[in-house]
Parts: sequence; structure tokens; C-alpha cells
Amino acid sequence: MTERLTDVAWLLDLAGVFVFAVSGALTAVRQKLDVVGLVVLAEITGLGGGIVRDLMIGAVPPAAFTSLGYVLVPLAASALVFFWHPHVQRLMPGIMLFDAAGLGLFCTTGTVKALAFGLSPLHAVLLGTITAVGGGALRDLLSGQIPAVLYDRQLYALPALLGAAAVAATDAAGLHGDGVTAGAAVLAFGLRVLAMRYGWRAPRPRGVSD
Amino acid sequence: MTERLTDVAWLLDLAGVFVFAVSGALTAVRQKLDVVGLVVLAEITGLGGGIVRDLMIGAVPPAAFTSLGYVLVPLAASALVFFWHPHVQRLMPGIMLFDAAGLGLFCTTGTVKALAFGLSPLHAVLLGTITAVGGGALRDLLSGQIPAVLYDRQLYALPALLGAAAVAATDAAGLHGDGVTAGAAVLAFGLRVLAMRYGWRAPRPRGVSD
Amino acid sequence: MTERLTDVAWLLDLAGVFVFAVSGALTAVRQKLDVVGLVVLAEITGLGGGIVRDLMIGAVPPAAFTSLGYVLVPLAASALVFFWHPHVQRLMPGIMLFDAAGLGLFCTTGTVKALAFGLSPLHAVLLGTITAVGGGALRDLLSGQIPAVLYDRQLYALPALLGAAAVAATDAAGLHGDGVTAGAAVLAFGLRVLAMRYGWRAPRPRGVSD
Repeated sequence: MTERLTDVAWLLDLAGVFVFAVSGALTAVRQKLDVVGLVVLAEITGLGGGIVRDLMIGAVPPAAFTSLGYVLVPLAASALVFFWHPHVQRLMPGIMLFDAAGLGLFCTTGTVKALAFGLSPLHAVLLGTITAVGGGALRDLLSGQIPAVLYDRQLYALPALLGAAAVAATDAAGLHGDGVTAGAAVLAFGLRVLAMRYGWRAPRPRGVSD
Repeated sequence: MTERLTDVAWLLDLAGVFVFAVSGALTAVRQKLDVVGLVVLAEITGLGGGIVRDLMIGAVPPAAFTSLGYVLVPLAASALVFFWHPHVQRLMPGIMLFDAAGLGLFCTTGTVKALAFGLSPLHAVLLGTITAVGGGALRDLLSGQIPAVLYDRQLYALPALLGAAAVAATDAAGLHGDGVTAGAAVLAFGLRVLAMRYGWRAPRPRGVSD
Repeated sequence: MTERLTDVAWLLDLAGVFVFAVSGALTAVRQKLDVVGLVVLAEITGLGGGIVRDLMIGAVPPAAFTSLGYVLVPLAASALVFFWHPHVQRLMPGIMLFDAAGLGLFCTTGTVKALAFGLSPLHAVLLGTITAVGGGALRDLLSGQIPAVLYDRQLYALPALLGAAAVAATDAAGLHGDGVTAGAAVLAFGLRVLAMRYGWRAPRPRGVSD
């Protein structure tokens, strides 16, 4: 992915990987995994969504396997959580903000890459959303849980979907570039923050309750 | 996959996707997932087997990411189940018949595609079977269950395997075409229906009982 | 993978597949799966790590889908366990030795193949390790368990990582060939055996206990 990202976008992408990796490592602590589980969950949460996207569009080897940064950043997140997880956990509200930023960034850069590989707007939106939520879903599966994105009714996938759709729509209208992508990322980020702030919930099928 | 399917075969394929997607969406209702989980399970149950096959044979992007129909049909199944799942559930016996039809169709078209990509008959049979049972296995994994196909002793994978083997055998004998594929699909469908009707069970290892 | 393995290496590789497949089939017995689950777990435990590696480096179709041996060997392991699992289970201590041998072999041949496909040493080490532990992780996921490699504190991934690193380091120093690979495999095997013998444990994050 590095070859199609500007320097700023690449740094932001690594920041997103870092935050997602921290959430994976914290899950490993909560599930009492050992150091192997912690590193694996950090790597997969940070990189899993992008790897799935790259396999689907045929960008092989995936970016995670061609850039040192993508492997080393989750390692740094692992070390941080391994030694100082009580402190990290206390920063959780702040981390949720960064997680929202990672969500916004991943859904938009994922859509941009899928479009660049010739996918239709609809499929690019799908893959952008998968880029954003896939790592977390793999994290949950590997730690023995149903992916939270499937049931916990937080608005998480939906902001990613809307951010991805904004990229695809502006692209179809002939607008490209970092500015447009950034705008769409801010849209997804803002929606996610508002959803957390006001407790917006995703609906469940008629008649289903706890 | 569209480029190698006739119009009739393509419509039947979409019908199979629809039925599998309904079963995924109903699983989401049963597991009390929210609307995101319902749509994801519908899409993955309907498309997952074919996506795994396409990744393995190198047909990238997978058919699911190049055709609008493959994405929209599970969305339609999702809407149906989201709003009217009590009615859909009442139609379950009929749905099981359609599911058997989807099984027959997927195992044979999956084998045909794998052969077209140059795989050996044995590997094509394997991938045809994976096409048929893979979506359901992913549905179960994502909803926190061991894949039913691995333990529930219904004859489900075996009819798919035999249908796939019939395609590979006739292909090796120089017989191709929609007619042969349809015959093999009917064979798998019929075996599956007979297995349901007469409660045929898959064996377990010696000495294993409940 | 056959095209880049010597005859001896290929036989050893099949031996590794066999041992891993036996462990998958025994897991199926323990989880009371039926014959389908037993065969699927045998195939996936034996072949899963290599398939993931091949998908990542773009070696498509994966070796498992181009060589008859890779499919038939897990079938033979399945038959053995299906009919004689009480006897097989009694051989468990010996099987653990073979498993350690499979670990050593898979981590080194996986690294060699990833290097041959042009990956960086770091990424090749990663993929070598995934080749060695990936099949077992998929086995656990499919049978409804958190992958043991993530939490059970045995030194399992670490010997694989060191064996893979030995291959990458000697390769960077200009040393190649079966002899070097065999030496690295023996290193990983030896570390794994010592870890079992002396009960070495992987650390957990500070403050995490049972």
C-alpha cells in the first residue's frame, strides 16, 4: 500500500495500525493470553483488515508482508501493553478516540486502494469497510468471542460504510486526492465519535430483544 | 464466475446464494445479532464458499467482488429476514429443500470452475465441496459455533462430494456442458433430500458416542 | 512446493503433514466430531499453515491443491485415527516428538519458500512461523477453542520463530541449500523438545495470573 500513499497518509496509516494493535494486545491481556497470543493479536488486529482486502483485490503479497513498518508498529504496541497495560487501560477513553480515527482512515484508504485496483464502487465500499472492521473481527474470533461488530449494536461498521461510500461517490464524480480522502475520513471519524457520545444503537430484527 | 455460466446457470447460482443467505440471516436472528451481524452473516453464508474457492484457484478478485448481483442478492435476503423472520422461519421445511438445491448447484459449478482453472480432478472435487459447505461453515464460526458440518452427522458434505465427483468423472470421460452439470447437481440434491427424509447419519470414530 | 524441494525434503515434508494431520484427527475424536469433521480437521491441520503462506506470497494454487500427496496423506492419517484412535492416543508421547519434527521442518521450508518468492528476511521469518503454527491454530478454531498457541505458554511458536530466523540469517549471509535448512530445522526441533522436557514457559504480561 505504501506505493500509493503520500508520506502523511502513510504515517496516519501506521498510526491507525498502532491503535488497532493496542486494542488487540489489550484483548490478549483481558483473555489472559501469553506473550505469543499478545503479539499475534496485536499484529492481526492492526493488519488483518488490510490483508483480507489485499488478498481479495489481488495485491499480493499484501502490504503487511512488503513493508517493515507494518510489522514493527504492532510489535511496538505489543511491548507497550506487555509492560504497562494497567496504564494503557487507564487511557482507554483516549484510545477509543484514536480507534475512531483509525476506523475513519482505514475505511477511506481501503476504498481508495480497491478503486485503484479496478473494483466497482459498490465492491470498493465493501472492501473499504472490511479494511476498517476486519482486524477487530479477527481479534475477537481468535480470542474465542463472537465479533463484537456483529452484535453489540454500537455504530461502528456504519460510520466506516458511510466514509467508504463518500470516497466512492466523490471518485465517481471525478474528485480524487488526499483532500477528498481526508474529508471522508473525518466524516467517518465524526460519525463514530457522535455515536459513542450519544449512544446511538444499531437496530435488531423485529421482535428480538435481550 | 459469470463469464463461464450460461444465463440459466447464473440465475440458478443466484438462487443458491439467496437461499444460503437466508439461512445465514436466520442464524443471526437466532443468535440475537444486530442488523450489521445479520447482513454480514447473509453475505458470508451466501458467498463465502465461492470466495474461498476463487482465492485458492487464483480467480482474483473473486466473483463476489466483480458482480453486483452477488452482493445485492444477500442484501435482499437480509431485508426479507430482518422484517419478516417469523414468517420465513415457518417456511423452514421448504427452505431446507432450497438449501439442498443450493448445495447441489454449488458443488457442481464449483467443480466445473476449478477444472477450468486447470486443477486435477481430485483437487477440483475438493474445491467443489468447499464451495458448497464453506459458506455455512463460516456462518457457524462467525456466530460462535463449531461448524455443524463437522459434527452433526447429517449427510451434507457427502452428497456435495459425490456431486462434485460425478462432475469430475464425467469430465475425465470427455463429457462436459450444462446437461452433465445439471445431472450431477440433481444427484447431489437427491442424495441430500433422501438423507433428510430417512435420517441417514454420518459415522463417528469407533467408540465415540454422546 | 514440490518443484523447489528435493526428494528427501519432500518426503520429510509429507511426514510433517502426516503428523500434524494425526493431531487434527485426534482433536476431532476428543471433540466427538463425525467422520466429516475428522477428515476436515486432519486436512486443515496438516495443510492449513502452508496454504496460508502460499496465499500470502501469491503461490496460487497453493501446493496443497496441486499435489496429490498433500491431500492423500491426511486422508491416510484420518483412516488410521478413525479406526484405531485408542492405540494412536497411547502413542502420544512419541507423536509429540514427531510433531516437534514437523514444527522444525515446516518453519524452515516455509521460510525458504517465502525467501524464494522475494520476501524480506523479516517477512519470510513471519511466514515460516505461520507455516509451522497456522495449521494447529485453524484446527483449534474449527473445533471451538482458542488456539492453544496463543495462551498455553508452551514454547511452541518461539522454537519455530528461531528456526525460521536461522534460515533467514544464513540466507542473508549467502548460505543456502538443504544442509543449512536441515540444521535450522534441527535447531527448532531441539528447542521444542527441550522446552517440553524442562517445561519452559512463555511469559505473560505483568500482573496476569490464573
